[in-house]
Amino acid sequence: MPKSRTFAEPLTLDSGAVLPSFELAYEIYGEISPERDNVILVCHSLTKDCHAADYGQSGVKGWWEQAIGPGRIFDTNRYCVLSIGGLGSRGCTGPASVESLSGRRYGARFPVYTVRDMVRAQKRLVEELQIERLHTVVGGCLGGQQALEWAINWPGAVENAIVISTTPAASAHTVAVFNVMSRLIRDDPAWNHGDYYESPFPIRGLRNALVAAVPLWMSSEVMDWRFGRRMHNREDYSYSLDIDFEVEAFLDGVAARAGEVIDPNGLLYLMRASSYFDLAHTYGSLGEALRQVTARVLLISYESDWRYPPAQVEELQMAFRACGVSSIHSRLHSRFGHGAFLHDLSGCGPIITDFFKVAVPEKLHA
Amino acid sequence: MPKSRTFAEPLTLDSGAVLPSFELAYEIYGEISPERDNVILVCHSLTKDCHAADYGQSGVKGWWEQAIGPGRIFDTNRYCVLSIGGLGSRGCTGPASVESLSGRRYGARFPVYTVRDMVRAQKRLVEELQIERLHTVVGGCLGGQQALEWAINWPGAVENAIVISTTPAASAHTVAVFNVMSRLIRDDPAWNHGDYYESPFPIRGLRNALVAAVPLWMSSEVMDWRFGRRMHNREDYSYSLDIDFEVEAFLDGVAARAGEVIDPNGLLYLMRASSYFDLAHTYGSLGEALRQVTARVLLISYESDWRYPPAQVEELQMAFRACGVSSIHSRLHSRFGHGAFLHDLSGCGPIITDFFKVAVPEKLHA
Repeated sequence: MPKSRTFAEPLTLDSGAVLPSFELAYEIYGEISPERDNVILVCHSLTKDCHAADYGQSGVKGWWEQAIGPGRIFDTNRYCVLSIGGLGSRGCTGPASVESLSGRRYGARFPVYTVRDMVRAQKRLVEELQIERLHTVVGGCLGGQQALEWAINWPGAVENAIVISTTPAASAHTVAVFNVMSRLIRDDPAWNHGDYYESPFPIRGLRNALVAAVPLWMSSEVMDWRFGRRMHNREDYSYSLDIDFEVEAFLDGVAARAGEVIDPNGLLYLMRASSYFDLAHTYGSLGEALRQVTARVLLISYESDWRYPPAQVEELQMAFRACGVSSIHSRLHSRFGHGAFLHDLSGCGPIITDFFKVAVPEKLHA
Repeated sequence: MPKSRTFAEPLTLDSGAVLPSFELAYEIYGEISPERDNVILVCHSLTKDCHAADYGQSGVKGWWEQAIGPGRIFDTNRYCVLSIGGLGSRGCTGPASVESLSGRRYGARFPVYTVRDMVRAQKRLVEELQIERLHTVVGGCLGGQQALEWAINWPGAVENAIVISTTPAASAHTVAVFNVMSRLIRDDPAWNHGDYYESPFPIRGLRNALVAAVPLWMSSEVMDWRFGRRMHNREDYSYSLDIDFEVEAFLDGVAARAGEVIDPNGLLYLMRASSYFDLAHTYGSLGEALRQVTARVLLISYESDWRYPPAQVEELQMAFRACGVSSIHSRLHSRFGHGAFLHDLSGCGPIITDFFKVAVPEKLHA
């Protein structure tokens, strides 16, 4: 179940804006060791939150349920898994929070933040939990961007970094996808310039954004495999504009569940943080950024991930190598493309397990 | 400039519905030979219409301007290029037409039609123009679906078929993309169940649909090349939700020009026709369909076209081969993916020219 911690000390953001205080939601699975050296920090991707695993508590599965638990990739018999929300995600300070000065919800007046800002906030919590050094920081996509920022900013606090389906900067294509989704959210009149907390929820815009994203994250191959051209509750074409195909009914389901996924403003801000992610821009050059890293680094990419292609992850490895930081890059196959780290752990599971064995052999044989 | 022809004899559609009469827009570039045997029929793709080339007339470039003209791929010194609109496209009967019985615009009461229906209508015009046999039918995507239906239904009337970026059936992914775009059009309250011809034009829905489609037809590679992470009229991040990047400004431009592209209802119907395209479904099996073909067939696909992948075009060739119809399949490289046949003719141009030489040598040396 999510815990929460409030931080009264102001947080200065990359933009120069200051959050007077902030709150983070987090969950912990497994026991921390007496030496406090077995903590794996899990960073979530775009539409997720700190509920990475249910761990038999509420009955609502976490987004990385398959990966976290006794005997799983992140084995809670051995590791203590800490999942912290990012600013703007459920339970964390973001545009849905009440601005203390005005007593009103921020809405679109909330300052735009970066992935580095998200990680700065998390660092406070990690300190508060008296964890000096994280065994591992791991995440995919926006989570991988966070893992990189962790390793760059607090090299002494990160022993291993596992960065999945993440490139050195958001590509023009990713910026475009997030622009489209933002446009759809904001096109809903109920969005009301971000001030919808006292008025009807802008569900249409959120639905449109989440549905429009499906053909971008679900590969053509997965759609063929899951749906093909199967009809939905009918034998033949209706010769109408209504739903005929299973895949159309699936999109209807995505639309129907949109309201449970994320706050529309939260999604707007998290997409913006991810669009702004560009290590070369933030640190002057990619080398300038990566030469800070002392963690052992595992990069994972998927051949079928056309949006975050292995060739761009390769650039990350080359840049690491150029500044003397060694890393492992595993290029995996999965029909799930960019969604592989969420939906198909058959490839990355053994790779991560091996990486842990290589990275910390003495602990495995303790 | 577009010409128009009205057909008074009813057209029975695949659905069983009957169009009491219909109109088609078309353009002709070049001169028809005395033997009337040099006509190349060009079929347009989804958001296009019969204005394939301007040919120095109105000043508005056609969608295949690069391909059609003296000395071009479809050389108007030699060939007579005929471009016919599909039902639902500009100038052709479709949901924007007036229903003769009620005197009202059809709107969403227009019968849903198939690609075969579109081609049935075109066949009437070709007959009216006293063309017994087309030298070539050519098209990409929805245009390629039309070229296949032409070759299947009137083998005696098609000497060569050039089918670009077209698979034997619309994939689940394509059905999903069209469902998303339809959803966005119909989500606009101004769409008004298709009855908007007397009320404000549903521009927001159309804008949303066309913008949401951009990251699906413009490849990540092209976006990197055209825009990268370049800022739009600024030096650094604005730390706002406004437009910061060139690629975002480009999407704004797509939105701004949406109203000129196509009638929203027309787009809905053309997408539906394309989603319904499935040769095996229509003819019982793919073999049953293709064994009708006597035309010489050139298939063109692009390695970077993840939505209409070469492997699926390969299936088409295999199926042709299985029923004794020989075809040529050229798998080309272009950074433009599914848009290559519109934006990068460097690959397909020489292939088509060679195909013509092989296909009709006696005419070339006449």
